Amino acid sequence: MSIKVTYFDITALGEPIRYLLTYGNEKFDDVRIERSKWPELKPSMPFGQMPTYEEDGKVAHQSLAICRYLAKKYKIAGADDWEALEIDSIVDTVNDFRQKIAAYHYEQDEAVKEAKKGPLFKETIPYYLEKFEKIAKDNDGHLAVKKLTWADLYFAGLLSYLNMMANMDLLEGKPSLQAVRDNVFNLPAIKAWNDAHKQ
Amino acid sequence: MSIKVTYFDITALGEPIRYLLTYGNEKFDDVRIERSKWPELKPSMPFGQMPTYEEDGKVAHQSLAICRYLAKKYKIAGADDWEALEIDSIVDTVNDFRQKIAAYHYEQDEAVKEAKKGPLFKETIPYYLEKFEKIAKDNDGHLAVKKLTWADLYFAGLLSYLNMMANMDLLEGKPSLQAVRDNVFNLPAIKAWNDAHKQ
Repeated sequence: MSIKVTYFDITALGEPIRYLLTYGNEKFDDVRIERSKWPELKPSMPFGQMPTYEEDGKVAHQSLAICRYLAKKYKIAGADDWEALEIDSIVDTVNDFRQKIAAYHYEQDEAVKEAKKGPLFKETIPYYLEKFEKIAKDNDGHLAVKKLTWADLYFAGLLSYLNMMANMDLLEGKPSLQAVRDNVFNLPAIKAWNDAHKQ
Repeated sequence: MSIKVTYFDITALGEPIRYLLTYGNEKFDDVRIERSKWPELKPSMPFGQMPTYEEDGKVAHQSLAICRYLAKKYKIAGADDWEALEIDSIVDTVNDFRQKIAAYHYEQDEAVKEAKKGPLFKETIPYYLEKFEKIAKDNDGHLAVKKLTWADLYFAGLLSYLNMMANMDLLEGKPSLQAVRDNVFNLPAIKAWNDAHKQ
């Protein structure tokens, strides 16, 4: 099977897909697009966005949908439909969290950005992190169903991007969330991937 | 089985869940929270949000995750994992479209809202609708895999909310997207539901 992932040469939304493929010991073509080439390429992308995932010539988009597809393939998408729901639900919540940080980070208007800063750092981020930490504690160092699922790989894969956008170590003082991260980072395949892709 | 959906007394993010349950001929408790009661109730909700879905006492949140769960139950979530990916992908794209309109509609700052108006109505909305229309045409009046899936029910369930936020008939001049809507609205169970819940 011929597999190709196309994204920018950054972690962000591409890294969870790369983590999933790496976890599945899949060989794949890790295509990284230079920013300067993007304007030319953008119109050819589904809805003008990356990452895309290509499998034997069939192209898919939307990073969460792609991750879920791979997770089913590698049997880390839940043992039954209710487990899959619990996993999907925390993944979408992590994604909400990402979007709230991104709405601040990518804000172009400095005055608007400054106005968003207080609520984000004093309310939203602590609110989410406290709940995530409790969930990670209740699930023994995982984000759902007390075992390794793609929710953990998604979260760990997104983490450096989240930290970059928030310009802080989001997991400081959050031992159970650190365990979620470490449970992923200590997987031999992911460890080798991270070693080979040090930023 | 005892099923309960809890949301505000509006369509918005709750209606696709209600549509799925209705499509599945499921009896469910359609709990609608008054706005005045929300501040008191909000802290008890997972991540302070609705809708929630309850099944025999187990509570789930995140509307897309809930819809996907129900779609599997009613066999409209794709015939295989690649079909499920195609459905998930268009659903997430419809959801991106919703968020872009919502970012305008819910903007509190009038100057910022005015600045968002041009790009949204002149670029974003036409861009998405044109692509959605082509997809609907290529899929014979459906949003994916040329047959009825939960992507269609999600889109049709969200439509009145999208039209309200954009303050326009988004499907005007889009015959294939109108067919997607009508293919859902003409399902006997959905027709009966809509007749009983005229806004």
